[in-house]
Order: sequence, then structure tokens, then C-alpha cells
Amino acid sequence: MTITTANRAHTLSDRFASRTGVFNESIWTSIFQQFRKHSDPVYFGDGSPAPEVIPVARLREASVAAWADAPDSLKYGDQQGYAPLRELVSSRISQRGIEATADEILIAGGSTQALDIACRVFLEPGDAVIVESPTFLGALEIFSLFEVEVIPVTMDADGMRMDELESILLSHGNAKIIYTIPTFHNPTGITMSLERRQQLVALANEHNVAIFEDDPYGELQYSGEPIPPIRSLDEQVIHFGTFSKTIAPGVRTGFAIAPPEVMEKMLGIREVSDISNDRIMMRTLYHASLDFLNDHVAEARTLYRARRDVMLESLENEMPTGVTWSQPDGGFFVWVTVPESIDARDLFDRAAENGVIVFPGEWFYTNRDVHRNVRLSFSTVPEDRIRIGIERLGTTLREMLD
Amino acid sequence: MTITTANRAHTLSDRFASRTGVFNESIWTSIFQQFRKHSDPVYFGDGSPAPEVIPVARLREASVAAWADAPDSLKYGDQQGYAPLRELVSSRISQRGIEATADEILIAGGSTQALDIACRVFLEPGDAVIVESPTFLGALEIFSLFEVEVIPVTMDADGMRMDELESILLSHGNAKIIYTIPTFHNPTGITMSLERRQQLVALANEHNVAIFEDDPYGELQYSGEPIPPIRSLDEQVIHFGTFSKTIAPGVRTGFAIAPPEVMEKMLGIREVSDISNDRIMMRTLYHASLDFLNDHVAEARTLYRARRDVMLESLENEMPTGVTWSQPDGGFFVWVTVPESIDARDLFDRAAENGVIVFPGEWFYTNRDVHRNVRLSFSTVPEDRIRIGIERLGTTLREMLD
Repeated sequence: MTITTANRAHTLSDRFASRTGVFNESIWTSIFQQFRKHSDPVYFGDGSPAPEVIPVARLREASVAAWADAPDSLKYGDQQGYAPLRELVSSRISQRGIEATADEILIAGGSTQALDIACRVFLEPGDAVIVESPTFLGALEIFSLFEVEVIPVTMDADGMRMDELESILLSHGNAKIIYTIPTFHNPTGITMSLERRQQLVALANEHNVAIFEDDPYGELQYSGEPIPPIRSLDEQVIHFGTFSKTIAPGVRTGFAIAPPEVMEKMLGIREVSDISNDRIMMRTLYHASLDFLNDHVAEARTLYRARRDVMLESLENEMPTGVTWSQPDGGFFVWVTVPESIDARDLFDRAAENGVIVFPGEWFYTNRDVHRNVRLSFSTVPEDRIRIGIERLGTTLREMLD
Repeated sequence: MTITTANRAHTLSDRFASRTGVFNESIWTSIFQQFRKHSDPVYFGDGSPAPEVIPVARLREASVAAWADAPDSLKYGDQQGYAPLRELVSSRISQRGIEATADEILIAGGSTQALDIACRVFLEPGDAVIVESPTFLGALEIFSLFEVEVIPVTMDADGMRMDELESILLSHGNAKIIYTIPTFHNPTGITMSLERRQQLVALANEHNVAIFEDDPYGELQYSGEPIPPIRSLDEQVIHFGTFSKTIAPGVRTGFAIAPPEVMEKMLGIREVSDISNDRIMMRTLYHASLDFLNDHVAEARTLYRARRDVMLESLENEMPTGVTWSQPDGGFFVWVTVPESIDARDLFDRAAENGVIVFPGEWFYTNRDVHRNVRLSFSTVPEDRIRIGIERLGTTLREMLD
């Protein structure tokens, strides 16, 4: 007879680790609810590449070449990642000023897994992680798994404020990581200035704190001059990249660049906790990227640049006085700040009723206690739909300001 | 100017978490050294399926069907795993007496990742995990990441000893998990009796400890009557399965079956730490397995049964008096026990010189302090090579006993 829940005295949930108590309610529940409010909403929530530029045919062809490596590639192996793919990453990243050999690169299941593995190298409960405020929701969720203190640093138009960072470092000996998205920041679209990057490197070195440079959007620049990645200024920076934004998220492939002492431990944790990425997909990505990815990214930039321009132009035309927004040089996001009289949570709800779905800014703050912003993503929305969506957002804001 | 290691006052390794201190030296280093000792060694170390039965052509065909789902499958999604693949697992596992819906199944990057995720649900430093002694090396490595006490329980011919388990449970309130490989155990090949499984379920319930049933080899039975999986006796058991042994390890796909309260937390950790498996490979495995996997596993069983029989027959012919070995009804392994006068570490070294590479038994003990055994894997070795390898092992043992 099978034992069922009914005839049991205990529950296993009494034995769960305290880290399982930290999950916020999933944001997807709220988003799904908003989709029910309008028959044809414009969705500005997507952090994915445009479906039109996902290179399906190229990937499908590359998969044939990848399978040609089987059955050898169907055994255990490639723990650090398929070597030719690491060479390719090494070569591509050098175009942006980062000198890293294939040995300094770990291929992982998205930059998300790479970040989780790096956190396992450094973090214990009670440690602190310093983040930009606001910052990427997914990173906050990873840090919460480690039961660490997450300390926000204010941003201005040049990125993370260094005076504030310095005073936090002086007062928090438990700080082990500074997590930053310096280039086309999520959610604000801001890029950290070169001077700030230099200051950041100096402060991190002085206090022996690791810099985690998250760089999912760095290749997607539409205007302005490129600013060197922080990793190009200091070889001890741990740099995270991904194929999710340049190729597709469903391939679940990203990477970390780390100095040898950190790489050794990351590789140890990777081998123990899940061995390797799917070996066929690593080969598929290699064959798909070779002699292709530069041109592909250039084409994607053209599409995204046009969408960004339409979004900024529509905001200019449609936003009531008192509303401001960022002017991103790249990436997927525009960050909108509303007048003090408006609560962005109400805007989130009422905009959805009017047919436009945004992300409320609170999701990107450590305590979810700032209600002045919404994040707009333009990457997956065609130009005419961007115009309609921003018009609807303007209408909603005017209704709320009346 | 890039900052280099030379001009730095600190090292980041001072800031590593204590869990990074727990890695044993990689066993692969020792194995590679053994390969250098002989021009044509027989390798009995492989825990992989035979290359001859990895269904490469079927997988390659299935990948075409998988890519037909793109580009939809190239976005984020399938966090719990591709639903048709979970339905397929649900249906296959019911053949072995486990009733579990697709909602109770999580697809992960091998059963290794599923086990790591489940550990993250339960374990904090200072907790205890109870294991069979000896047990799977990879599981010991995962537990070490969580800085828990690992408590070994002696095995006999019927599996884990229940009298010993009970006294450990009585004296260790910090025990949260009993980890067992009840069917064709790695490394011993032993199968836990039904009576023991029932006692185990009763004890775990009484003490509110989770049972982790690791079942990589359950489908690979060559003789004897099947014994129901522990999960079929208690729906609160967390059961781990994999495609690594029935299809191929390089596809990095396994699964966990867990009750709803555990599944909710596993899914939360999975979404936060690496989002999902590669979505194309999940579809490839689905299409490859449909109307195929039963026949494929039957064919593989025929090959492995013949290899097991040749290994057992060769041991009978070649082993000197005083050497004993297990008689597995399935799986990949035979566990050899040598006379007290022999140290299995020396056997490991000297056998390699004579052209046969085995795994020393110490690797499967929590403290690596038992030196009486070697593990022989027959899965990847052709019959004539098995005969040669066992002959070389016999020669080595006779040399050492002289």
C-alpha cells in the first residue's frame, strides 16, 4: 500500500532550508493577470530578442554539423565548455577590449547559471552584496538564495555613485561582491562612465571585493562611443556574458570570464552540481556563430535602433509634463519616472486596462519600496505597436494626473 | 592600464566561501595517470552506456522534429521541463509502479542537477545526510558543497541495514535526508529487498526525514524479479531518474519526481538559478523516445546482460581464493572485495601497470578510509576485452598474494 499525505503525522516542509523562505511571489502571476484586462495589449515587458532576428535557419543548419560530432559528444565531457566555443568567445570578446584565453572562460546554462555558480564560490549567509539601485530582478533573486545582505547604491546619469559606494565599503566589511550592469543597464538603460569604472576598480581592489560585471547587452549599442568593459581595466573582474540576447534565450547558453583562482573553484562547483551544458547545443552555437555572429548582431542592432528611436520619439510626443525617461545608447530598456503624485503600481494596473503592459519599477529595488518608475522594453515590439503602446501609456498618465 | 595580479595587495581567494574548501582532488587526475602505464589498458571505470547502443541516428532525426518547434521554443519558457517530455516520463515510470503526474516531474540538467536542486531545498550547514556505505561518489561531492555531516550506514546483501539506520535516526535529529540507490546500487550492484524498502519508508516517516531515491539504473535489469521503486511505496519520496544511462550522458537530461510542497520549492530554485534546460534538447529527447525507448532499452539490456555474464564468468575463472564479488541483477557494476592482506590502492596501481584500470573502492566511502574493494564497470567494454581485463586483474592479484 502506498503511503499518502492523509495518513502522515509530519510534513517535509518542516525540514526545508531557510533559503526556501525567501522567494517573492512570482512576477509572472501579476503579468498574466494584466493580460486578461484588454483584448489586444501592447506588451513592453519582454527581455528577449525580437523573434524576427532569432536566426532559426542558421541554428538548424548548424545543428546538423553539431550532430556530426556524435557519438563522441554524447559521452560525459566538455565540463568547462566545448573548447572551440570558448575560443570563439575569447576572440569575440577581444573586439571589445577584453583579453581572456579560453582557459579563463566557463560555458554555463545562461549567464544566470554562471552567476549562480560564481555566487557559490563567494557567498555565505551574512555576507553582503552591493548592487546598483535599481538592478536586475533575476540577480536579486539569485542573491536571495544565499541569504546575504543586499546593499543598494544610488545611480545617476553616469551609473553607480562612487561616493556612496566608498562609504558602504568602509562600513561593511562583510561585502564580498559588487554586482553591476555597467553597460545599457537593466532596468534603467544607463551606461557607467569610464571614470566611474576606473574608480570602481580602484575601490574594489582597495577593499578586496570581487566585481561581478554582468554584460548581457554590451554588444547591442545603437549610438554613442563604446566604453571599455570593466574587465578590460582589471583582469580580476568576473565578467558574465550570454548568447540569450544575441542568438536566443531558449539555447540556455552563457559564459563567465574569471581569473584562474576563481575559475578553478567555479569549475569545481560546476562539475559537481551539474557536470556540463548539453554538448550538442554548445556545438550548434559554435557552428552557428562562426563567420556569422558579427553580421547578425549588426543586423539586429539596426532593428533595435529603429525601435528605440520610435519609442523615444513617441515618449516625446505623448508623455505629459512632469514625466521623464532615460536615453539609452543600447540594450532593450527605457526607464520612465512619473510625477510624485502617481504611484507606479496604480499605473501598472490602469495602463493594462488601457491596453499597455509595463513592468512596475518596484520589482527592481531591493525592498520593492520605490514606486516612481516603469520599465519599457522595446526589443520585441514592432514600430507601429510601440507608437500605439506609448499613446496608451500617455492617455493613462493624463487620466491619472487629472 | 589593466590591473594585473602583480600590482595587487590582496587575493580574492581570501573571500571565498568555506564550501570551496571541501573539494577532494579530482579522481580524473589519478585515472589519467593510470592510462600512461600501459599501451593498451582495459578500462573498467566507465559509468556511461556502451557507445554501440547510443541511438545517434534516432537522436539526429528527432532533432529535426525538435527544430520544427523553433522559433517559439527559442524564447524563455519550459521552466519545469517540456510538458510532452514530462508526460512521457510519467507514462514510462508508471510501468515500474510509480504513479506521478507530469506536474510532479521536474526536468533538469541530468539527475545530478536535480539532486543538487533538491539539496538546496533541504540542506543547511550542520544538517546530516544518511547514505549507504559505500555510495555514489558524485552524490558525496554534492553533499560536500552543503557542508553537512554525511553519516554512512553499512550494507549487506539486502541493502542498507535498517537496525543501524534506526539507531542513527534516533541519535541524529539533524538528519534531513536518507540518500539511497536501492536498485543496482553504485558501486556495489546490490538491490535493496522489498522488506527493507518498507522498513525504510516507515522509519523515514516516523522521523520526518526525506528519502532521496536515486534510480539511474532501474530500467537496466538483466535477471531476477523487479522490486518496486521506493517511490511506489510512498508518494513523499523524492525520486531521481535520468536519460544518461538509457540514451546518453551528453544530452544532460534527467528528472526528479517530488511531492507538490517539495516540487514548488525545487521549481523556485531552478527558475532562479538557471531558468530551464536547453529547450531544443528536451524536444529532441521527446521525439527520440516516443515509440522507441522501450525497445531501445530492451536491446541495451541484451548487450549489458551478456557483458555482465562474461564478467562474472571470468571472475569465477580468474580470481584467486579469498577474493569475492557481488552478483548484480542489473546496472553497470560489479564490486570486488580483496583479502585483508591486500590494500586496494596498491591493486589500483599495480593492475594499471598490468593493463587493467579499475576504480579503487575508497572513492565511494565518506572518509575514503576503506581499502578492500575495487569497482568494475562492464557497460562499455566488449566481451573479449572483459575477458582480457579480468585475466590481467587475476594476474595482478596473484602477484600481490605471493
